[in-house]
Amino acid sequence: MSNTMRALVFKEIGRTAVMEKPIPEPGPEEAVIRTTAALICTSDVHTVKGALPVPAGRTLGHESVGVVHRLGSAVTGFSEGQRVAVNAVTPCYRCSYCQRGFTSQCGGPLGGYKYTGQIDGNMAEYFIVPAAQANLAPIPADVTDEQAVYACDMLSTGFMGAEHAQLQFGETVAIFAQGPVGLCATMGANLMGAGQIIAVEARPERQELAKRFGADTIVDFTQGDPVEQIMDLTGGEGVDAAIEAFGFPQTFEACVRVTKAGGRVSNIGYHGENPNPLQLPLDAIGLGMNDKSIHTGLCPGGSERMTRFFRLLQSGRIDPTPMTTHRFGFDDIERAFDMMSSKEDGVIKPLITF
Amino acid sequence: MSNTMRALVFKEIGRTAVMEKPIPEPGPEEAVIRTTAALICTSDVHTVKGALPVPAGRTLGHESVGVVHRLGSAVTGFSEGQRVAVNAVTPCYRCSYCQRGFTSQCGGPLGGYKYTGQIDGNMAEYFIVPAAQANLAPIPADVTDEQAVYACDMLSTGFMGAEHAQLQFGETVAIFAQGPVGLCATMGANLMGAGQIIAVEARPERQELAKRFGADTIVDFTQGDPVEQIMDLTGGEGVDAAIEAFGFPQTFEACVRVTKAGGRVSNIGYHGENPNPLQLPLDAIGLGMNDKSIHTGLCPGGSERMTRFFRLLQSGRIDPTPMTTHRFGFDDIERAFDMMSSKEDGVIKPLITF
Amino acid sequence: MSNTMRALVFKEIGRTAVMEKPIPEPGPEEAVIRTTAALICTSDVHTVKGALPVPAGRTLGHESVGVVHRLGSAVTGFSEGQRVAVNAVTPCYRCSYCQRGFTSQCGGPLGGYKYTGQIDGNMAEYFIVPAAQANLAPIPADVTDEQAVYACDMLSTGFMGAEHAQLQFGETVAIFAQGPVGLCATMGANLMGAGQIIAVEARPERQELAKRFGADTIVDFTQGDPVEQIMDLTGGEGVDAAIEAFGFPQTFEACVRVTKAGGRVSNIGYHGENPNPLQLPLDAIGLGMNDKSIHTGLCPGGSERMTRFFRLLQSGRIDPTPMTTHRFGFDDIERAFDMMSSKEDGVIKPLITF
Amino acid sequence: MSNTMRALVFKEIGRTAVMEKPIPEPGPEEAVIRTTAALICTSDVHTVKGALPVPAGRTLGHESVGVVHRLGSAVTGFSEGQRVAVNAVTPCYRCSYCQRGFTSQCGGPLGGYKYTGQIDGNMAEYFIVPAAQANLAPIPADVTDEQAVYACDMLSTGFMGAEHAQLQFGETVAIFAQGPVGLCATMGANLMGAGQIIAVEARPERQELAKRFGADTIVDFTQGDPVEQIMDLTGGEGVDAAIEAFGFPQTFEACVRVTKAGGRVSNIGYHGENPNPLQLPLDAIGLGMNDKSIHTGLCPGGSERMTRFFRLLQSGRIDPTPMTTHRFGFDDIERAFDMMSSKEDGVIKPLITF
Repeated sequence: MSNTMRALVFKEIGRTAVMEKPIPEPGPEEAVIRTTAALICTSDVHTVKGALPVPAGRTLGHESVGVVHRLGSAVTGFSEGQRVAVNAVTPCYRCSYCQRGFTSQCGGPLGGYKYTGQIDGNMAEYFIVPAAQANLAPIPADVTDEQAVYACDMLSTGFMGAEHAQLQFGETVAIFAQGPVGLCATMGANLMGAGQIIAVEARPERQELAKRFGADTIVDFTQGDPVEQIMDLTGGEGVDAAIEAFGFPQTFEACVRVTKAGGRVSNIGYHGENPNPLQLPLDAIGLGMNDKSIHTGLCPGGSERMTRFFRLLQSGRIDPTPMTTHRFGFDDIERAFDMMSSKEDGVIKPLITF
Repeated sequence: MSNTMRALVFKEIGRTAVMEKPIPEPGPEEAVIRTTAALICTSDVHTVKGALPVPAGRTLGHESVGVVHRLGSAVTGFSEGQRVAVNAVTPCYRCSYCQRGFTSQCGGPLGGYKYTGQIDGNMAEYFIVPAAQANLAPIPADVTDEQAVYACDMLSTGFMGAEHAQLQFGETVAIFAQGPVGLCATMGANLMGAGQIIAVEARPERQELAKRFGADTIVDFTQGDPVEQIMDLTGGEGVDAAIEAFGFPQTFEACVRVTKAGGRVSNIGYHGENPNPLQLPLDAIGLGMNDKSIHTGLCPGGSERMTRFFRLLQSGRIDPTPMTTHRFGFDDIERAFDMMSSKEDGVIKPLITF
Repeated sequence: MSNTMRALVFKEIGRTAVMEKPIPEPGPEEAVIRTTAALICTSDVHTVKGALPVPAGRTLGHESVGVVHRLGSAVTGFSEGQRVAVNAVTPCYRCSYCQRGFTSQCGGPLGGYKYTGQIDGNMAEYFIVPAAQANLAPIPADVTDEQAVYACDMLSTGFMGAEHAQLQFGETVAIFAQGPVGLCATMGANLMGAGQIIAVEARPERQELAKRFGADTIVDFTQGDPVEQIMDLTGGEGVDAAIEAFGFPQTFEACVRVTKAGGRVSNIGYHGENPNPLQLPLDAIGLGMNDKSIHTGLCPGGSERMTRFFRLLQSGRIDPTPMTTHRFGFDDIERAFDMMSSKEDGVIKPLITF
Repeated sequence: MSNTMRALVFKEIGRTAVMEKPIPEPGPEEAVIRTTAALICTSDVHTVKGALPVPAGRTLGHESVGVVHRLGSAVTGFSEGQRVAVNAVTPCYRCSYCQRGFTSQCGGPLGGYKYTGQIDGNMAEYFIVPAAQANLAPIPADVTDEQAVYACDMLSTGFMGAEHAQLQFGETVAIFAQGPVGLCATMGANLMGAGQIIAVEARPERQELAKRFGADTIVDFTQGDPVEQIMDLTGGEGVDAAIEAFGFPQTFEACVRVTKAGGRVSNIGYHGENPNPLQLPLDAIGLGMNDKSIHTGLCPGGSERMTRFFRLLQSGRIDPTPMTTHRFGFDDIERAFDMMSSKEDGVIKPLITF
């Protein structure tokens, strides 16, 4: 048995490569997973473009599932060969940020996001799991790898968008952009009691998925100002909450505008592409007094949350796999990565199998 | 007994006047109060400068207490002659906004603020109380008019600032500006369990009051960048929450910057003076992902909240009266108003007695 | 046009009657509705048995919809002839209980429940609506009377059960008894993100409806101790929350027992049949220390909540009408009432049309 | 340097002893602390009486502070010789209970309470800290050992009582019994905005401390039914919340009775002395419908919470040391323990120094 493995790495700005690396060894609190399936995330595309400074040779990837290869000495309750999923965010659960419940901010801002940014990512044949006791989520027998891998980032981020929208049952919500996390936000809002979901999206294949996942109405921003369209759809009053799943100042501002007084703006878009600050227009926030609130956040990690997604998958309440538009073996990982970068062929999520 | 009264009114932009008006008659759900004490609010100064469009002749004022003069036919449980306070915000409590708990947004954005904006204000010898059943708060015998009148706006707005900061006991909070509402936010944060209160203020008399009301540390922004000072005071980590009580884009941005990941920014400043949108710099919000939240709001009204302030006043837990720097009879109301406008002589709040 | 109407009234303990009464006149804050559809509630059966002391001649009923017949002088925004629903609970929205958000406790314990207990109920051809501004909920054109009338009590009570269960998405919940409110709790838990719903019920027709409304597993208490069955179904750990929809000490205790540490017990059962206190066994509450909580409540009223149910009905997310097992005209109201009392013929809810 | 230490141990039911034991060695995730100060807790008295089954020779104690003696290999950010406090509850922070925020229920009901129940306690010259990364709280230089040791259990449990009471500022609360945790609940309620604190206590020295810590009114249950007294004090309406800090069915029931509709009952009493279940009388819970809630809990642990207590101690907002009625060296530990058992000489908390 070889002690090396292949990994997709960052080479230099704009370039990736597949590299041989030693199979990692777990520290006492860690585990090593042999990867069986993974998804490519647009944020890795951003990273390769230079959005996040990473050293050359750093493995990419943060959406992977697999089987336990080796366990650190302090990790109990798991066994080698067990199928597990690991969230993109792997908090220590013990620092002051984690103790206060802000596990995605483990150790400081965005610190729970360790793969790629702080350590090797997991688009590789094997990968390390920090604080494995808290971050290994056993996959039930009746949940497939393909289903489970969506819980690693897409579902967790999208559902956080819906959670931060703080919907009372029957309330109205607008969701800006129906890429993978926007689609998962739609699924989450639908599952958490929304009464009317307005999805803003122009691509037909994404519009169709949005409807399948629970959107009641589609607003096509190529057919007119989405703010006006949403105000019309809500009798001029606006929505109870808006979810920003695009990552641009214009959509963020639109979210602030379409919410009624007392409304919540829940940001899940990654705002690393446009350097301008986000803006809160004074009229849209009632000069600072109209009881609106703005919420930001990063994919919540941890095994307990993963387990709750698995229940929803097991009972058939959600099924994210229609988002898998393409499938590749790891041999074709660079081609898959290029496709995610160009967004060609209507790609939503390419699934990689090992 | 005369059926006319005197009222301080808006004349034209930049000018006020005292005018004779008929004593109002209550509708079925209303009450009429004979005023005994009032405070002048800086927001009326803004109104007279043109910030809020009001018709000529509209009575100013929204911080008044008095005795019940007449009750509408549907108002029960009160009696003529009874001492009562009425909050600046007088919600109907029955519209969809009120039912959802956003009573300051009664009927729509900022709609709970009826005095001056929608109906005659209460800097007059008599005034109307809408939805009197919900808005008349009996003043206990051991609470003075001067104490009670602070609950009408200053305490309610300041405490809301502290409530929106969502402090766990022992947490840290920075409060930007120690004008009357900032001072009340300090008092509120202190009362709701803050462990360290950092008050940003340059005027010595306000610094002194801030300390008296619970501030642990004063940051004088004339002595250096307040953001840097606060980061230094917190070991480089920032505070759990920041309260904006000044109303300018710079202080709002500073609030976003000084909060740690997971922090709350609670706005109570009135942003009508500077037309620019408020900004959320991308680094300060972790590209939209660092679990910070922003909360806006307007003075919460209603008798139940007033009653809770009265308990705090009765038990001596709070005493806002050190903020009364000047006292006038209603005959001198215009002089008092000019002083509030110029902020001369270290004025914080001028008390008007009738 | 006659100025009298027919009403189902309480005659004496154990007896009802249909009586002629004058059509009521609205006070300034009230409305009068001409009834078009109503449901019979088991709590009226309890009332007739003597559970709630009411004077002879008091009209029964609290689940009715209709059209606006006349509006009080202070009621605005509605028009005669408009289709409206009115919740069983009609709070004033202005007393201290209502202002604090406990609208079902309007004026004091259970005080929001005015029909039958405090004033004539609405199983009559016309009925009064107190605080009509807050309690009239217009029915959208695409919602039928039969759908809307379920929002008056069944949906509102059942969904409250699910709200008080404070479910995070994907959590587990056990619901004891699948009568109409239990079935609505199942529907609510399913709509608010439950991952596994265990419904305790022995009658086949109710088991079937439970599954249709979202239950994953049925526990038949005639086949063994339901506590043991639920512990087995959850790997010995118990559920995150339990909803008591039966109203007996045994089921309440079972709810406490089947919840895991940190679990919530949400009571919606009416405990008027058995005089014994509810019990919290020390082992089941960890000697008072296992972070469990118990929540009680009464059907929340108000038009805003009704409107949110209408959105769920409009979008097809819920449909309670399969619970309508029988249909009667008002001429047959006493026969319908007897059937609700005997629970014969698999009755769940009998719909009365006028 | 000797490698043995002295420890107070459980000998058999009703008997303790001081024993020589080896100084423990830390595992990778643990630390060993050299004790400098400790408090004796009544729950140890219960344990010795047989309430908690523990093996002979098990070290007692769970309220100790000291200096770091040795650190496990995986513990970072601390140094030997550093002054630290360790909460009585030492959660792993990584199991599903901890991830959901129920850290006191680590691994299952009451599982966060490891000292004495699961491992040796810390009334010894040295002690182990599990999950040290999360459980070591550095003591600031300006906080004394005596102050800090109150945060280990008394303050944390008492403040939890106030947190679970969910007080809005200015609300009313009754606290049953003013032993050490009841006194800390008084302190906590006062710090978190209570408007009126009614403390139920008969012993004069405890009444006096209660007033010093924030109680407005004392109800002496030897002078009449405390429920009636509290109803009288609140105009017949009852309090917004009640805290049970005694641990008997009668006081628990009184808590349910004195709360108004919508009220919260927060239990911090240990109910291990009386085997009967706690009761919820039907009239006091409105037949299950009056929006009251009951909350149970166990001393929350973790360093982050400890740090927040230290801020309150540093700023002088709280000072629990007046509860130290007696002081002993470890040589006199058995005499001190007997005193805690007999409650002689007005003892509240005996401080042990090493």
